[in-house]
Amino acid sequence: MANDDTERGNFADRLFGKVIEKRSPIIAGIDPRLELFPKSFFEMEENLEPLVYREEISKAVLDYILNIIAAVDKLVAGVKFQMAYFELLGWNGYKILEDAISFARTKDLVVILDGKRNDIGSTSEAYARSYLGKKGFSKDYWGNDLGDSLTVNPYLGSDGIAPFIDQAKEHGKGIFVLVKTSNPSSTELQDLQVMMEHTGQHLYETVASLVSSWGERLKGELGYSSVGAVVGATFPSIGKKLREAMPFTPFLVPGFGAQGASASDVAVNFDSRGLGAVINSSRNIFFAYRFLKDFSEEEYAKASRHSARNAKESVMAALEEVCKDLEY
Amino acid sequence: MANDDTERGNFADRLFGKVIEKRSPIIAGIDPRLELFPKSFFEMEENLEPLVYREEISKAVLDYILNIIAAVDKLVAGVKFQMAYFELLGWNGYKILEDAISFARTKDLVVILDGKRNDIGSTSEAYARSYLGKKGFSKDYWGNDLGDSLTVNPYLGSDGIAPFIDQAKEHGKGIFVLVKTSNPSSTELQDLQVMMEHTGQHLYETVASLVSSWGERLKGELGYSSVGAVVGATFPSIGKKLREAMPFTPFLVPGFGAQGASASDVAVNFDSRGLGAVINSSRNIFFAYRFLKDFSEEEYAKASRHSARNAKESVMAALEEVCKDLEY
Repeated sequence: MANDDTERGNFADRLFGKVIEKRSPIIAGIDPRLELFPKSFFEMEENLEPLVYREEISKAVLDYILNIIAAVDKLVAGVKFQMAYFELLGWNGYKILEDAISFARTKDLVVILDGKRNDIGSTSEAYARSYLGKKGFSKDYWGNDLGDSLTVNPYLGSDGIAPFIDQAKEHGKGIFVLVKTSNPSSTELQDLQVMMEHTGQHLYETVASLVSSWGERLKGELGYSSVGAVVGATFPSIGKKLREAMPFTPFLVPGFGAQGASASDVAVNFDSRGLGAVINSSRNIFFAYRFLKDFSEEEYAKASRHSARNAKESVMAALEEVCKDLEY
Repeated sequence: MANDDTERGNFADRLFGKVIEKRSPIIAGIDPRLELFPKSFFEMEENLEPLVYREEISKAVLDYILNIIAAVDKLVAGVKFQMAYFELLGWNGYKILEDAISFARTKDLVVILDGKRNDIGSTSEAYARSYLGKKGFSKDYWGNDLGDSLTVNPYLGSDGIAPFIDQAKEHGKGIFVLVKTSNPSSTELQDLQVMMEHTGQHLYETVASLVSSWGERLKGELGYSSVGAVVGATFPSIGKKLREAMPFTPFLVPGFGAQGASASDVAVNFDSRGLGAVINSSRNIFFAYRFLKDFSEEEYAKASRHSARNAKESVMAALEEVCKDLEY
C-alpha cells in the first residue's frame, strides 16, 4: 500500500508551513447555522416538496460556503468545518461537506473537521477512517479522505485515541484533542483538582500530559507533533501554562472574537517563534455581514474577507509584540 | 407548536415500558462493520464505478440490518445504532441510518443513537435537533426526528449538555451521558481521584452527580429520568456503586458478551424492580452467525434471533435471582 504519509508529509509541518506562507495563524470556522444566513437565501418558492426544499436549501448553503472560502483563502491558513451544522442537514449536509472540502483543497487550505468524535476500539477506527483515512472503497479497505485533521474527545482514554493516531500516522493527518474548552462550564470537570502521587493538578493538566505522550511518535521537521490540543482562548492564564507544559503540541484555539477573547489573549498560546498555535474564528468571519454595518447582505463575502483580514492583522500585531523569535 | 412530549410521553417511561412489555432489558446493537458481513454480501460485479459500488454495498448493508431487526424485534426492548459505522459509508450511510430507523419504528422499538456527541451552545443545539428534535424543515425550525435518545459525552460540562436536555424535554426524548465506559483505558481519566471540599472521589462519581442533577426535571411516571448514563458492564463493582448513587437514572450498559461481562455482572446495574438499566449487545447479536457454528452464513438472521433469545434469557435468569421486587 502506498504510504500517504510520505506524499503528504507530516500534518503539523503542513499546518505551520501554511501559517508561515500566508503569514496568518487564522483558521476560518465554517459554521453554517441556518438561522444566521441572509434572509434571501431561504426565500424559496412556496409549497415545495420537503425533499426539493432541502435540496434547494442545501444548494444555497453550499454556494455561501464556497463564496466565503474563495473570499478568505489568501488570508487564512485553513478552514474548520463544524460538523454539527452539516449533520443537521442530514445526508444533504454530508454531501455539502464533501463538496466544500474538495473546494477548500483546490485552494490549498488545511482542512480541520470539528466533530469532537470519540469511542473505543473498532468504533474509533471507523471514525478515524471516515475522517482521516485514505479514500478507498473495496473489500480490503473502506475509508474517506475528508479532513486533514479532526477534533477528538479524551474522556474514554488512550484506547479510544489510538485508532485516530494510527490513521493520522499512516496518512499524514492530525488530531486535536480537547484539553481545555472555551465554554464557561468547562470548569466543572476540566478544572477539577485530581490527586496524583505526591501532588494535585487540574484534570486538563492530566489530559495535557496524555496528549503530549500520544504525540511523541508523530513529530515533524518543524518540531511539532500531529497530535494537537484544543485550548480555549477564554482562559488565557491556563493557555499560557499549557503552552509551557506542552512545547511541541499544536494548539487549536477557539473563543477568539465572538466568544470574547482578544488578540493579546490568544497570543499566549504561541511560542516565541510565533508558531505552535492556530486561532479559529467562526461567526466573526463566516457571518461577518451581520456584524459589519458597512456591508449589505449581498456583500456577505466581501464582509467576510474584511473580517478575516482584521483577524489576521490584529493577531499578527499581537504576535509581533510578544514573540521574540517570530519566524514569519 | 404541538408538544411532542405530550404525544410521546416521557422517554424513560417508554423505554422501561418496552422492557416490561417484552420482558427483556436487551438492546440490540446495530454495528454494521463492513469487515464482519458475510462474504457473499460484498461479491459485486467486477469494475463497478465507485459510486455504483458504494450504492450496491449500501443496499446490501441495509438489507442485512432490516433482516436482523425483523428477526429480533420481539426479543429486545430497542435497538442502538453505532453511528461511526454509518458515517464511514458517507452520505449513503446517513440514508441507510434514516431507513433503518424508520423500519425500527414500525416494529415499535426504542431507538438509541450511539454518537457520543458533545459540543457547546448553538453547536450542541444543532446536534440535539439533528438527533432528538422533531422533524421540521422550514425557516423557523430545522430538525430531524431520528432517535429516541442519543449518547453524549460530558467533558465540556453543563452548558454543552443543556441543549440536549432542552430538546429531550420538549420532544419526549432522552440522552445517555458517558459516566464510566467499558474499555480498559477508561481508568485513565474516569477513575482519577478528584479532590472535593473535605473528601476525594472518582471523576466518574462527579460526572454521576452532574447526570443525576441534570435529570431532576425529566422524571417520568415510572420514577426514572430521561437523562441516563452509560455505565460499562466490565467494571461491575463500579456499576453497583453507581446504581446506589443514581437511583432514578437509566443505565445503558455496554460490554455484555463480546467484551467479557456475564449476565450476573450486568445484573448489578438493575434496581430491585428489575428496572433502571438496559443491556446492549452488539456483535454477539448483530453478527451472531460468526459465533454460532450451528448456523450457516445464509442463516445469519436466524443466528441473530437465537443469540438475542439467549441474551434475554440469561439476563432474565440473573434478574430473577437478584431482583426481589421484579416487576415483569
